[in-house]
Amino acid sequence: MAEPVGPGGTVGILGGGQLGRMLAMAAARMGLKARVYAPEADPPAGDVCPATRGAWDDAAALAAFAATVDVVTLEFENVPLATLDILAPLVPVRPGRQSLAVAQDRLSEKRFLNAAGVRTAPYAPVEDAGTLAAALEAVGLPAILKTRRLGYDGKGQVRLTTAADAPDALAALGGQPAILEGVAPFVRELSVVAARGLDGAIRAYDPVENVHRGGVLRRTTAPAAVDAETAARAVALAETILTGLDHVGVMGVELFHMPDGALLANEIAPRVHNTGHWTLEACAVDQFAQHLRAVCGWPLGDPARHADATMENLLGDEADDWRRLAAAPGAALHLYGKGEARPGRKMGHVTRLRPRSRALRVD
Amino acid sequence: MAEPVGPGGTVGILGGGQLGRMLAMAAARMGLKARVYAPEADPPAGDVCPATRGAWDDAAALAAFAATVDVVTLEFENVPLATLDILAPLVPVRPGRQSLAVAQDRLSEKRFLNAAGVRTAPYAPVEDAGTLAAALEAVGLPAILKTRRLGYDGKGQVRLTTAADAPDALAALGGQPAILEGVAPFVRELSVVAARGLDGAIRAYDPVENVHRGGVLRRTTAPAAVDAETAARAVALAETILTGLDHVGVMGVELFHMPDGALLANEIAPRVHNTGHWTLEACAVDQFAQHLRAVCGWPLGDPARHADATMENLLGDEADDWRRLAAAPGAALHLYGKGEARPGRKMGHVTRLRPRSRALRVD
Repeated sequence: MAEPVGPGGTVGILGGGQLGRMLAMAAARMGLKARVYAPEADPPAGDVCPATRGAWDDAAALAAFAATVDVVTLEFENVPLATLDILAPLVPVRPGRQSLAVAQDRLSEKRFLNAAGVRTAPYAPVEDAGTLAAALEAVGLPAILKTRRLGYDGKGQVRLTTAADAPDALAALGGQPAILEGVAPFVRELSVVAARGLDGAIRAYDPVENVHRGGVLRRTTAPAAVDAETAARAVALAETILTGLDHVGVMGVELFHMPDGALLANEIAPRVHNTGHWTLEACAVDQFAQHLRAVCGWPLGDPARHADATMENLLGDEADDWRRLAAAPGAALHLYGKGEARPGRKMGHVTRLRPRSRALRVD
Repeated sequence: MAEPVGPGGTVGILGGGQLGRMLAMAAARMGLKARVYAPEADPPAGDVCPATRGAWDDAAALAAFAATVDVVTLEFENVPLATLDILAPLVPVRPGRQSLAVAQDRLSEKRFLNAAGVRTAPYAPVEDAGTLAAALEAVGLPAILKTRRLGYDGKGQVRLTTAADAPDALAALGGQPAILEGVAPFVRELSVVAARGLDGAIRAYDPVENVHRGGVLRRTTAPAAVDAETAARAVALAETILTGLDHVGVMGVELFHMPDGALLANEIAPRVHNTGHWTLEACAVDQFAQHLRAVCGWPLGDPARHADATMENLLGDEADDWRRLAAAPGAALHLYGKGEARPGRKMGHVTRLRPRSRALRVD
């Protein structure tokens, strides 16, 4: 196994948003230095570490960046694979190509999951009106037509409730390769945030329960209100996925908990995850530190939860209410330093802690 | 009351050591920007925010720094008062002159404490052999001769066990104005880390128990093993001190718990405090965020402890053991990014969490 990147070493982070910012802060807590590479000017992470502005296909800028860091990681899964291919001969890149290739394409993702023995909602690939008709036949209604690539936070998705919605749905996606997914009538949405180390060891935080609205995460409750057996199954699925991808770093695995108890994988994110932000206050080693431990080859930290927590995202102008939010008992307020509060933009989050429940609550 | 410095505002920090570094990281979590001003090149805080290198008496550099920030605070109490006097007309400086003036001079500190009704060990001022003889008469033996100014972490102190030690002790201090302090035969050392807001509100963390070696903090245990009445008295003393100084920000108040139950104040530090580092993991709002809330005019946060904790400093080459330290269950490892591990230098700390004790343990 490669030598670890120890204290004093430098971690390069692809992407400069709030996840990169929180990774850079975790690096500083651990005595590591951080640098981000991002296409935009003044990224949020640039407040807490040096930032290089560069395009994803600028080989010279990427090489110069690689020369200043000891390992490269990323804060979002849509970094082009070609970017990784430029960097990989120059510096270790963790997680690697496979985790991103699978996560960047909803069809590859579903096929990987099923091949690994992880169940999903029914799905079928869609290229045009003919394949959409066949997909509707196979998947049933209601269903969601999603672009295979570059969708996030509910973007690039159209819901179909009748077959008559098909033409408009196809038009809305503008002919991009797509996937039709059946709507899973879930009882609750769960996620598992877990890390896999360079040595293959896996540590998972307790499964949590999530509420999305309009495709955007609103609230995470830790732990999820599921019994111990369900929690263990959820963690086992995450372990299967991380090992199957030879993933290094943190990954977020979103699951649907079905009325019959089954767990269906919804999607995976090969990076620190919004549903893991609660670990900043409720765990001795949070997801950002854990991710850095993994990509730097450190021993993974203890994921034990020492408090229960509820995390709520602050979207758009909700963060303007910071004075009231800051005054709430037991609340930790995080703001991401973003200038413009566009509607729906993630501007910060609030985590409220509660005494640790003795055991997982029974469903 | 002045308008708060809200998200997007900039906090200037005088001093760039590990406390400034942790303050700057707390600022980033809160959506504030930070800048440090420090006399040395490459201060630890410079990894996480812009750093201005300047002397404490460089009025032009200080004015330029003041022009880039919305409020100034400090990470160490020996910032010259003349520096504050340059800054104060230009930008709010919190805490203010009075807190520093008292904390910079051990004699002023003791006199302030006694005048506020807070007991201390016996003491007497020392200028020369004659006043030392008189002081020994008044204070008794054993005693410690300390410089009035600029002592920290056990520096500038000599212990006297017999009157015959007097000439060497005086010589060791090189004629600096000094104070002779009686050695308090304490049962334990306690401290209270508390914050006072711009509105005068006070929030105290649970009193903690400290172990020093060679004048340097080794370990803090939260909470202290004292009964509720003692803890309440300790907090009340801290409140008296913070209010008496019209202090704004966090303050560390070190106390001796005596065999008869009395609490004697040892010293005060008008800043975030090494004995408050455990709050980073064990409280929703840690001492660094709390300090910034105070100096920025935000509502103070909830200081409730949701886990018990033990914090150990890593001195000198102890931090070289980071791989083993990182692997310990329940341990959060903090490293300060300092290059040179001089003997006794504070290089990092480790906090271990335990489930929250239901109530304070009874002595």
